[in-house]
Amino acid sequence: VAMAAVWRRWPGLRRLRAAAPRGPRALHAGSARLQEVALTSERYGVRRLPFSRVSRGDVAFFERLLPGRVVTSADELEPFNVDWLRSVRGSSTLLLKPQTVAEVSQVLRYCYERNLAVNPQGGNTGLVGGSVPVFDEIILSTVLMSRVISFDEVSGILVCQAGCVLQNLNQYVEEKGFVMPLDLGAKGSCHIGGNVATNAGGLRLLRYGSLRGTVLGLEVVLADGSVLDCLASLRKDNTGYDLKQLFIGSEGTLGVITAVSILCPQKPKAVNLAFLGCQSFTQVLNTFTTCRAMLGEILSAFEFMDDKCMELVEQHLKLSKPVTGSPFYVLIETSGSSSTHDEEKLNNFLERAMASGLVTDGTVATDEKKIKAILLSFVFLLSSIPQKLWSLRERITEALTHDGYVYKYDISLPVGKLYDLVTDTRARLGRCAKNVVGYGHLGDGNLHLNITADSYSHSLLDAIEPFVYEWTARCNGSISAEHGLGFKKKCFIQYSKPKEAILLMQRFKAMLDPKGILNPYKTLPSSS
Amino acid sequence: VAMAAVWRRWPGLRRLRAAAPRGPRALHAGSARLQEVALTSERYGVRRLPFSRVSRGDVAFFERLLPGRVVTSADELEPFNVDWLRSVRGSSTLLLKPQTVAEVSQVLRYCYERNLAVNPQGGNTGLVGGSVPVFDEIILSTVLMSRVISFDEVSGILVCQAGCVLQNLNQYVEEKGFVMPLDLGAKGSCHIGGNVATNAGGLRLLRYGSLRGTVLGLEVVLADGSVLDCLASLRKDNTGYDLKQLFIGSEGTLGVITAVSILCPQKPKAVNLAFLGCQSFTQVLNTFTTCRAMLGEILSAFEFMDDKCMELVEQHLKLSKPVTGSPFYVLIETSGSSSTHDEEKLNNFLERAMASGLVTDGTVATDEKKIKAILLSFVFLLSSIPQKLWSLRERITEALTHDGYVYKYDISLPVGKLYDLVTDTRARLGRCAKNVVGYGHLGDGNLHLNITADSYSHSLLDAIEPFVYEWTARCNGSISAEHGLGFKKKCFIQYSKPKEAILLMQRFKAMLDPKGILNPYKTLPSSS
Repeated sequence: VAMAAVWRRWPGLRRLRAAAPRGPRALHAGSARLQEVALTSERYGVRRLPFSRVSRGDVAFFERLLPGRVVTSADELEPFNVDWLRSVRGSSTLLLKPQTVAEVSQVLRYCYERNLAVNPQGGNTGLVGGSVPVFDEIILSTVLMSRVISFDEVSGILVCQAGCVLQNLNQYVEEKGFVMPLDLGAKGSCHIGGNVATNAGGLRLLRYGSLRGTVLGLEVVLADGSVLDCLASLRKDNTGYDLKQLFIGSEGTLGVITAVSILCPQKPKAVNLAFLGCQSFTQVLNTFTTCRAMLGEILSAFEFMDDKCMELVEQHLKLSKPVTGSPFYVLIETSGSSSTHDEEKLNNFLERAMASGLVTDGTVATDEKKIKAILLSFVFLLSSIPQKLWSLRERITEALTHDGYVYKYDISLPVGKLYDLVTDTRARLGRCAKNVVGYGHLGDGNLHLNITADSYSHSLLDAIEPFVYEWTARCNGSISAEHGLGFKKKCFIQYSKPKEAILLMQRFKAMLDPKGILNPYKTLPSSS
Repeated sequence: VAMAAVWRRWPGLRRLRAAAPRGPRALHAGSARLQEVALTSERYGVRRLPFSRVSRGDVAFFERLLPGRVVTSADELEPFNVDWLRSVRGSSTLLLKPQTVAEVSQVLRYCYERNLAVNPQGGNTGLVGGSVPVFDEIILSTVLMSRVISFDEVSGILVCQAGCVLQNLNQYVEEKGFVMPLDLGAKGSCHIGGNVATNAGGLRLLRYGSLRGTVLGLEVVLADGSVLDCLASLRKDNTGYDLKQLFIGSEGTLGVITAVSILCPQKPKAVNLAFLGCQSFTQVLNTFTTCRAMLGEILSAFEFMDDKCMELVEQHLKLSKPVTGSPFYVLIETSGSSSTHDEEKLNNFLERAMASGLVTDGTVATDEKKIKAILLSFVFLLSSIPQKLWSLRERITEALTHDGYVYKYDISLPVGKLYDLVTDTRARLGRCAKNVVGYGHLGDGNLHLNITADSYSHSLLDAIEPFVYEWTARCNGSISAEHGLGFKKKCFIQYSKPKEAILLMQRFKAMLDPKGILNPYKTLPSSS
């Protein structure tokens, strides 16, 4: 039994952590990923709805409204027409970049009157094809809506435009002693408006809860151009129905989010990481239970990944893991207000975990200057270990895209059954799949099941679906824990929601967007 | 400068804490409170909408459906027709006590067809007249829907019927090592369904967030009797719009909540309380900022109250406060996983607060056996100090009802302006009011402003309203932080919500309850 621990000073964890580049800027970086993506409409056989087509007169109108911020060149449009995974492609000929809510309102009023379909787009980092057009929808980008409106240093309440990049916001509030309540691998590209529109989960949900609790207010433009100002900056407000909740997670189908008010927690004074190896998934579960009981209020992340994930990260991204020889790994983060107390809690937990054989190997990184050797057989000294540890987890998605075509599943399950789905899928697919891997936010009961193959194949898809959805439904799980339904999952909603609920959603959609111009073909199956 | 601290072993804080009795059972306890309450419709001059009247045939139908669970006697109906504050009264002649969702569904389907209005009622502890009928609405009580459906000891997810009393649920989950994520003075009477329907805030919101994050699923019966099963038990689920959010805080006007799935946090191993005196509200604010920075993740409550509140609690309830001579008091609670660490953090904070003159007197209660004397001039030994400390805060509402007629305001404000509203109101009302007091959840920016007078007077009401609402609106505050709008506040919604939002709420109401039979005259102003 070997336990490796490194303790070192490490200021500003979050700022230094390497973010996986995502979105349009990263799209053309890796030449291996430049394969042609078929038009979504062709691959999936969907039919264009009878919206108007963009005319010269329409372009002229938008050029008057948004001078210099109207894009019609195919080359410039390319990265906005294809998703980050290069799995879906639209054929939009028009991209608009409004800067203000008034401009968004005027755009939508015009589109509504002209019956022009609109695809609202943030950082285009979505994973279910929700952020790109399916046909020729006008792309309404929040890229120029990146202004911080206000920040209250007493309450930690941030109000900003929808196009602010998550990582920039985090840097901004960190300088004032706070952090954003959410964090995810795409933070270098994703927009806060898109995060809210997809109800993004991510790495801090275990600690700070979902956006449904931390988003305090929204400004939204409805399909007909009317502005709904629910941009309150209050922790509590029980005056009528909480309308903003409908737009959180609606993937741009009910309105365009133009500004967000969000509660930021205090920046923790001490952050520690532990990267541990476990010999079985049962040990992962027992480690989690022990960890939650012993670390309590300072536990801020409990991520797990299987050995195959680590192999792909090593193979494609040349990252090396500090611990080897285990079928499962867990990454534990603590965030607290006292480094001494937090280290003591973490040490007690590690001692218990080692003594009871829950973990067999591990690396620990803290922000303390001193180097301690507790339960150590070996001591590694790595120059940037916290960033490296987090990269191992955060860049799995990226590593997978280098492995071939990726079939992605984002599943909520009772935590005890989480890995059974991976095992069963692996057994079912056998050699038809290149790799079947499982990782995710164990603390939230959220599994990311990913299957890679050399290229897209309809027969492999048929072997996976609806198998994975039926398996999930039998356990009363969710077929989309945090990615949303977008274009690629919308037809599977019935595996997680009863018919009555879907009908009611369709009625809300019809009420708020009677012409259906907002992000059509997404989230809900058509109501006919 | 005197600092009093008591450290003693104190297991099971929550179980022992004295709950203020509320609701029907407590109603007739104090003879001083047996004054006659005018019919709401007469006092407020509202008109009955053209719903059907309950016929003999209707009663016969319900008696077949709910044998032995139909109440028509005026005496038995009395406590269900009057609210806990004795401020509003309805004249219902029929109370139904279903036990299952199927029964609720049958009741509503019948009422919908017959156009009979329905007042859903939980523990009847609401503070804005939302929980009692206005005219002759049928009272649909959840009192017999008190079954726990399931509890998952790994995830801490509780699924139960809507009529479970909050305190009973807390005892139930405490035995399994968890606590309910909300706590409030009315816990001994209020139902979890009512808590969710009013989006109750309470004493733990600072730590565990709002019900919008902790409620994972709901089962709701709509106006026409159809059942919406969104009773998921998953931490994360992004499949379509989050319909349950519409019912959270809708005060029974959009549907009847019949079951709740809720995430319970782990029971903290150590709970500490400090009761401190401050010489000004500025010192209260500075104490909060210092406290939040130094106690960080273990801070679980920061309540404040002015000296007048304490006077009323002493005068009417014969409770004595352990600290005297300050115009303001704060009650700080920490909850954590290590008593040693938590006490050390609390001590450090208290030392800082005393040294910098933020607090001038205080009492501390922890769950440690040893008695420590830190910064002490005097040491008090009280046999049940934690309960007493919490009672001082929790029973303010009760003490106020003994002081006369109470005008209640539940306001969200930027925390720095919180007490200015009390000062300004006191100055404005002068001798017209008996007492003007302020207390509340400072950590959440939530002020409870209460004004007492010997009896109800329209001229005093005119002096208070709309003054208080206009003052709040100027600060972009909320005129109802956690109590809801119910009957008494619904006409003031425009002080906190824009016209477009109110119109949209009315459209949701019309869509979900086209005949308007569910809790009519509540939450929203009529749409005409």
